[in-house]
Amino acid sequence: MDALDAISVIRAKRDGGRLTDASIDWVIDAYTRGAVAEEQMSALAMAILLNGMDRAEIARWTAAMIASGERMDFSGLSRPTVDKHSTGGVGDKITLPLAPLVAACGAAVPQLSGRGLGHTGGTLDKLESIPGWRASLSNEEMLDVLDSVGAVICAAGDGLAPADKKLYALRDVTGTVESIPLIASSIMSKKIAEGTGALVLDVKVGSGAFMKNLDDATELARTMVGLGTDHGVRTIALLTGMSAPLGRTAGNALEVRESVEVLAGGGPADVVELTLALAREMLDAAGLPDADPAKALADGSAMDAWRRMIRAQGGDPEAALPVAREQHVVTASATGVLTELDAYAVGVAAWRLGAGRARKEDSVQAGAGVELHAKPGDSVVSGQPLLTLHTDTPDRFAAAEQALAEAIRIGPAADFTPAPTVLARVA
Amino acid sequence: MDALDAISVIRAKRDGGRLTDASIDWVIDAYTRGAVAEEQMSALAMAILLNGMDRAEIARWTAAMIASGERMDFSGLSRPTVDKHSTGGVGDKITLPLAPLVAACGAAVPQLSGRGLGHTGGTLDKLESIPGWRASLSNEEMLDVLDSVGAVICAAGDGLAPADKKLYALRDVTGTVESIPLIASSIMSKKIAEGTGALVLDVKVGSGAFMKNLDDATELARTMVGLGTDHGVRTIALLTGMSAPLGRTAGNALEVRESVEVLAGGGPADVVELTLALAREMLDAAGLPDADPAKALADGSAMDAWRRMIRAQGGDPEAALPVAREQHVVTASATGVLTELDAYAVGVAAWRLGAGRARKEDSVQAGAGVELHAKPGDSVVSGQPLLTLHTDTPDRFAAAEQALAEAIRIGPAADFTPAPTVLARVA
Repeated sequence: MDALDAISVIRAKRDGGRLTDASIDWVIDAYTRGAVAEEQMSALAMAILLNGMDRAEIARWTAAMIASGERMDFSGLSRPTVDKHSTGGVGDKITLPLAPLVAACGAAVPQLSGRGLGHTGGTLDKLESIPGWRASLSNEEMLDVLDSVGAVICAAGDGLAPADKKLYALRDVTGTVESIPLIASSIMSKKIAEGTGALVLDVKVGSGAFMKNLDDATELARTMVGLGTDHGVRTIALLTGMSAPLGRTAGNALEVRESVEVLAGGGPADVVELTLALAREMLDAAGLPDADPAKALADGSAMDAWRRMIRAQGGDPEAALPVAREQHVVTASATGVLTELDAYAVGVAAWRLGAGRARKEDSVQAGAGVELHAKPGDSVVSGQPLLTLHTDTPDRFAAAEQALAEAIRIGPAADFTPAPTVLARVA
Repeated sequence: MDALDAISVIRAKRDGGRLTDASIDWVIDAYTRGAVAEEQMSALAMAILLNGMDRAEIARWTAAMIASGERMDFSGLSRPTVDKHSTGGVGDKITLPLAPLVAACGAAVPQLSGRGLGHTGGTLDKLESIPGWRASLSNEEMLDVLDSVGAVICAAGDGLAPADKKLYALRDVTGTVESIPLIASSIMSKKIAEGTGALVLDVKVGSGAFMKNLDDATELARTMVGLGTDHGVRTIALLTGMSAPLGRTAGNALEVRESVEVLAGGGPADVVELTLALAREMLDAAGLPDADPAKALADGSAMDAWRRMIRAQGGDPEAALPVAREQHVVTASATGVLTELDAYAVGVAAWRLGAGRARKEDSVQAGAGVELHAKPGDSVVSGQPLLTLHTDTPDRFAAAEQALAEAIRIGPAADFTPAPTVLARVA
């Protein structure tokens, strides 16, 4: 290689070679500056997806993305910081009850989040269904809310890992999302640049997740835990099931309502179980192993933190949430046990109903989504309501039902195998 | 696949699947219209490069690129048409003597050519070193020259396979050139759309060619012969060596001078041999097996056709050719036999001296290039001139010499293995 130019770097990876530290540093910096073109980076991303990167390459790639922007610093806070990241699932509203719950137990949770793309929802889209709530805060406002409430959920600023911001948007439109090196470096560059002291990863496995099997999910978890640890962030990962939707709702306002039920001491068992499991890991990683998150849910202190957090960002926690203009009920076609309710199909249905966006610039419907009246393992009777579809645009019901056509199976109880919520832990 | 969208097509190939006829038709058309973005097509091109396409996919891809533009028709001409295409090499000026030679023997040669990129020169760049000559003709002008002279060498019009035009430029900057399916479909879509009745392919093998070994070159040749035959074009391919430069010059005006020597009945033996071999194949494919190209070189009729062809496009065949302002001689470092003179290195040296361009918008120096005073197999004496480097910008001598550092080997006669000019024939 005579000089560091984009084609040499692409060819090296295309031909199955390693990228040198110098090439990685150069290509990430040049891409951020616009000197490497989008079409060059997408060819490189495809070559990485197909030919892989080893641990040292992933580490350097992550470091280069961190170095492309600013790093935040929470060391001035009186509480230990701990963050959570989920690799994305259907009905995954866990961040909403979890952040105030962990704050109520004494840690500080700086949750810099993204918006939804495709069939997985985005935390910010969900919270924006609360009247008045705003996602964009300056760094100073963010630190103020974190300091006073103990938890903040807001949009990541433009200064944090700008290389990842560009690459994430590019991967989304070029079929280069499903790559362990690219997923791991994308998540970890943002979390490390954000400056959290500890991090708990919720790596989803199953039809509704990017990782369809436990082996891939374990490799992704190990890669991310390694990257965090190398950068001085105490990092652990839980591998959790995503074959069926989490809880009983998928959609923005629908999921906020369910999250508030959990904070009120109720809510679906799987959401409560996962919220508590992640809270315990976060508190342990933050050096607060004796905190009792179940108590904080029961005594209302988590709900208090939620209300303060929503108010601090302009939202009214008591306001009525938006409701979709039209509903359509999908009924059970047989009597038996609901043996399957495919997460991916429900995610696509919610997306088509208006809960998600196909392009970054699209807006979402606050009330749209899917409500579940039965969960896998439940007995159902032919003709009973299984799902309610919600949308402001009823011409989308047909497309949503089409997505669900193969998603629902009803059979004998013997055909149902219960799956644990938490499948494995990687530390 | 719910709908034909770019990401679904990319994913199908990324995951090792076949592209359906409908996806190929859609993606080529949408790319030509701009509905598939450059970064999406580059990701797809990388996936094709790494995961391949089968014969049926390549055939459909080629047909879709042909269908993206106009098709020409030479059936109104009184002579049979036959074209030649070379996959590109160093010092490959064969088109220049070949087109008028075959015309002098009774066929019509519509040679729609491209410009050089990287280390291989372009036929149009070479001819543009002739004062007054212009590459761009309207379709009507092109047909007039073809009809009156029997040969025309000009730029392919924008209407011919526009999908390939976009994709060719994209592949060049994204490290996705070296793919047999993409090379074969690019060449054959242009040649089939051009409307030639017969086609002879010169597939180069060796360090100075895209195909470095005979197996790859044979696969490329078979793929292209199959595509041509399927579209009713009589197509044959010669596999020819490109380990050392062809002839004794690499560079625009330098190669025109050498071509004129061949037309005058002289010139380097390898250039004459390859010109005659290709001429015989072309005349045979055009249904003129009894024509005698050696006679047409000897009796001056090929030279007459050359002069008429150059004049018909505004050029003065008697005018002095441009000469570079500065020369630098590279001498032999030892006494012995020149066992190796690497074609790729000579091509890079000529490019750096100014004969080629790094970007499409760059201009080339007419006089720049490399002149060879010895060919592999020749005996040389330490200190004798081996190469003369020509350039208008002498600050480039150092970079050219650097490219040549490992390219020249002098050793005992036993170390030299003569290679035939024509290695194989695929029909």
